[in-house]
Amino acid sequence: MRERNRLIYLPLGGAGEIGMNCYVYGYGPQGAERLILVDVGVGFPDMDGQPGVDLILPDIAWLTDRADRLEGIFITHAHEDHVGALGHLYSQLKAPIFARTFTACHARRKLEEAGQNPGIVHVAGAYPEAVEAGPFRVQFAPISHSIPEASALVIDTPGGRVVHSGDFKIDHHPVIGEPFDKVLWGQVAQDGVQALICDSTNVFFRTPGRSESQLAEPITQLVAQARGMVVATTFASNVARLKTLAEAGRNAGRSLCLMGRAMKRMVTTAEETGVLIDFPPVLSPEDAIDVPRGNLMLIVTGSQGERRAASAALSRGPYLGHEVEEGDVFLFSSKTIPGNEVSVARIQNALAARGVQVVDESAGFYHVSGHANRPDLEAMHTLLRPRVLVPNHGEFRHLREHAQLAVQKGMLGVIAPNGTMVDLSGTPPGPVEQINISRTYLDGSAHVDAFASVIRDRMKLALNGLVVALIVDEDEQILKCSRVVLRGLPGAAGNGADLAGMIEDALAQCLWQLDDKTAIDDDKLKEAVKRTVRRICLREIGKKPEVTTLISRAVAK
Amino acid sequence: MRERNRLIYLPLGGAGEIGMNCYVYGYGPQGAERLILVDVGVGFPDMDGQPGVDLILPDIAWLTDRADRLEGIFITHAHEDHVGALGHLYSQLKAPIFARTFTACHARRKLEEAGQNPGIVHVAGAYPEAVEAGPFRVQFAPISHSIPEASALVIDTPGGRVVHSGDFKIDHHPVIGEPFDKVLWGQVAQDGVQALICDSTNVFFRTPGRSESQLAEPITQLVAQARGMVVATTFASNVARLKTLAEAGRNAGRSLCLMGRAMKRMVTTAEETGVLIDFPPVLSPEDAIDVPRGNLMLIVTGSQGERRAASAALSRGPYLGHEVEEGDVFLFSSKTIPGNEVSVARIQNALAARGVQVVDESAGFYHVSGHANRPDLEAMHTLLRPRVLVPNHGEFRHLREHAQLAVQKGMLGVIAPNGTMVDLSGTPPGPVEQINISRTYLDGSAHVDAFASVIRDRMKLALNGLVVALIVDEDEQILKCSRVVLRGLPGAAGNGADLAGMIEDALAQCLWQLDDKTAIDDDKLKEAVKRTVRRICLREIGKKPEVTTLISRAVAK
Repeated sequence: MRERNRLIYLPLGGAGEIGMNCYVYGYGPQGAERLILVDVGVGFPDMDGQPGVDLILPDIAWLTDRADRLEGIFITHAHEDHVGALGHLYSQLKAPIFARTFTACHARRKLEEAGQNPGIVHVAGAYPEAVEAGPFRVQFAPISHSIPEASALVIDTPGGRVVHSGDFKIDHHPVIGEPFDKVLWGQVAQDGVQALICDSTNVFFRTPGRSESQLAEPITQLVAQARGMVVATTFASNVARLKTLAEAGRNAGRSLCLMGRAMKRMVTTAEETGVLIDFPPVLSPEDAIDVPRGNLMLIVTGSQGERRAASAALSRGPYLGHEVEEGDVFLFSSKTIPGNEVSVARIQNALAARGVQVVDESAGFYHVSGHANRPDLEAMHTLLRPRVLVPNHGEFRHLREHAQLAVQKGMLGVIAPNGTMVDLSGTPPGPVEQINISRTYLDGSAHVDAFASVIRDRMKLALNGLVVALIVDEDEQILKCSRVVLRGLPGAAGNGADLAGMIEDALAQCLWQLDDKTAIDDDKLKEAVKRTVRRICLREIGKKPEVTTLISRAVAK
Repeated sequence: MRERNRLIYLPLGGAGEIGMNCYVYGYGPQGAERLILVDVGVGFPDMDGQPGVDLILPDIAWLTDRADRLEGIFITHAHEDHVGALGHLYSQLKAPIFARTFTACHARRKLEEAGQNPGIVHVAGAYPEAVEAGPFRVQFAPISHSIPEASALVIDTPGGRVVHSGDFKIDHHPVIGEPFDKVLWGQVAQDGVQALICDSTNVFFRTPGRSESQLAEPITQLVAQARGMVVATTFASNVARLKTLAEAGRNAGRSLCLMGRAMKRMVTTAEETGVLIDFPPVLSPEDAIDVPRGNLMLIVTGSQGERRAASAALSRGPYLGHEVEEGDVFLFSSKTIPGNEVSVARIQNALAARGVQVVDESAGFYHVSGHANRPDLEAMHTLLRPRVLVPNHGEFRHLREHAQLAVQKGMLGVIAPNGTMVDLSGTPPGPVEQINISRTYLDGSAHVDAFASVIRDRMKLALNGLVVALIVDEDEQILKCSRVVLRGLPGAAGNGADLAGMIEDALAQCLWQLDDKTAIDDDKLKEAVKRTVRRICLREIGKKPEVTTLISRAVAK
């Protein structure tokens, strides 16, 4: 009997978390499926969990072990959590990359920055054009989101049709780019959809989503009413929002100035690729200095409180010749991504302390989400009528809620967090294998496995502080503690006494009392030193620090 | 001419931040005012800003320098950000403490835990009873909030009446304790209020606040409809909420079990002080094991995602003999305090992964705030008609917004963040002095000044990792690098080579080439070592680590 061909789905990132999207599809006999990869995104570290780490990359070990079976890489859109890891991981993948024009520009830049050949990125036309990749036929179907040219993928295989929604919302007036196209999705559904892999970000929001175009009026009003300078920040990649903001400025007779590398690059790329037309003229920060503040509008990066972005710089003082002051308005036309609340509040407070009126989305007028709310998800389910719904782009609770919604609506809902391989063509479709996957930290230029102890060690140092002790062995009989250095610990104990000195004294006494066996055994000696250091520190400052002991034994002469 | 007596206000904490409340009032000739202190609260550290720190305490140096002038300490209510630092700072203050019964119990415990005499805490009666303290006459006026016996302070001095609102909301049906009392506040306003120092937490919320009593119906319904076990978490100190939750459980025929030390203590204290009556009977976790899960309700600590609390423990697995499973409901009857979003989401996702239905306040049914929304703040302004309004209990943007609101309503609005001394009796009233204040970190048992480098050093270790290098000088001529130890750094460079070994080799070469002057000068030698270590690390792993160099020079024999 010939082995059955199967159609598999395996999330390596983005399922069980929001961000770091990375999904494998496969078709063929079990263990010999031909593969495609959809999106190669990054996640963002925080001090709480990954101090010092630059980016979080998906663990693609499963895929690199099977790189010879990889037919192509498809990028749905140019957000960092979908394309940001491409440069860092491409050398392990080496397959042709496909994306629409605007996204392809960003993908090429990612490769260039990593010293890879950008020529491997192929521009794909929009649906109904198709890319053939092994047994896969993939169409980029335009879908509304918060960045130009976002696409769902219509993936055809001999095992059936899969729709990978990518990030999406239902927006009939998205300001730039194609409106949500019911007719297109009707066509896609016509021949039957085996599985819908579907964005779950906003599954808990029960009201229908709002259109990007609804923001023009309130933003225009806000800018028109302002007396001083207006500064607005949003996600650099939300080119439609940039246009709305810029037009609100122009309508109020204000000159425009963009600040922040990412934002200028986005506008340039959007203009070059033709997705953005009629963007009002822009002054450089230098040229904008002479514009009276009542006639000026800055559009700047840093809506998430990033320390190095323009918003943060302006909250601290003069930046590129501009300084906010009493009477200015600072608009956060953005939502705060969970985890960034404290950083954003810090900047908003610093601005308020300078007398600036800070306006944010809490009033409900100045931001709309790029993701489908629950009723819009349901509309998409109804349009596509898939047999199986596998929620992605969500934390576990989002996946669960979305799968339950699918079941309520008569579909098969499958919860598949990262590492869960699903046989979409099974009878019934469902999970078939659990792959052990980790995540990879980009730390400087090094790739560090998240399971390795490196970052945990760093957190221990941050939480406990460190005592470095040097033990000198001069003749294998008399050990002495020659130095103790404290890092991240108070220098004085409660009574004001020198902590390092107290530890040195205690170690001297400890070494004096040591039996010979311990004295000549490095491991035992280190253990004795650690115990002594911790005892003193616990007594004097109430903490048990990390301890690093260096032993210097003189070479017998 | 005799010097004018003045009435001053000086926030040491709580103004320019939400939390860590600590306010000084003074009356008398400039520089010789008699003083009282209102609240001695703590702030909570986070990994982002204060790794390893246990609590943040207000910097009371200004006050301890004038401790002989301190007439008394008044505690408005028993929340940690109002009473939590009492034990840690009392030894520097030594003045009688006044609070109402329930709050006094908590204040006494704080002193006992710190080895101080709890007898110094005096129970004050409610308004119209008064405490005399030097030139101050202080009345505890009951006001609704999210903890029993919260009080505003009506502070009378020869310089006029000040109302210190404390944390409050306008709740006419607060479930336990006194409803908001318009008549009382009318009386307080009758003789004129010079200044209102007023809670600003919810100044950005434009709808009127909701009553604690409105939660009974939706919570009762939710619990009644549940099939499996119900677990509910909220702030342990919200005794009214605990009662609502417990009654919802009892009404659904469920046995109750409290988990978490803080929660059990709150209920006990509330019952002992008579503020809580008719709380349904409670089983111990052991006795509750035999109750069928459909007949059981756990009320647990950990609504903010605290790693050691019961909620977190239950999300990880069995806890005290109980384990959540598919079909259970877990209610977060609480809001997530900014900064805790990621921790809370982690627990909610872990619960969802166990098949639990997680319900939170996002639907708007299961939590109400303990703070007055903007219309309620305005109602309080109207009731009291103060001459001056000084917003407190808010970040800078809250203070600013609240002061602007005051100005719009014809009052004088004064923004006074921590360290700004305000002369409330001045002509006009306003800021008169800026005190340099820091904050104090409780780190283990040590008090560390926030401006000191200790915590910054810890953050550097966490962000950059550490290389410890041992340099041995055997005869003042030949230096050798005998060891390099890495902490929080990957052991292998990009090409797989041993990083410590590469650094040791580079140091050996560096030492060999060193001129004599550098070799014998510890500072210069350390600088040379640091440069070499960083050069190698930047090249090999793209990071510039912290470097600690130990030099062991042999004593000339």
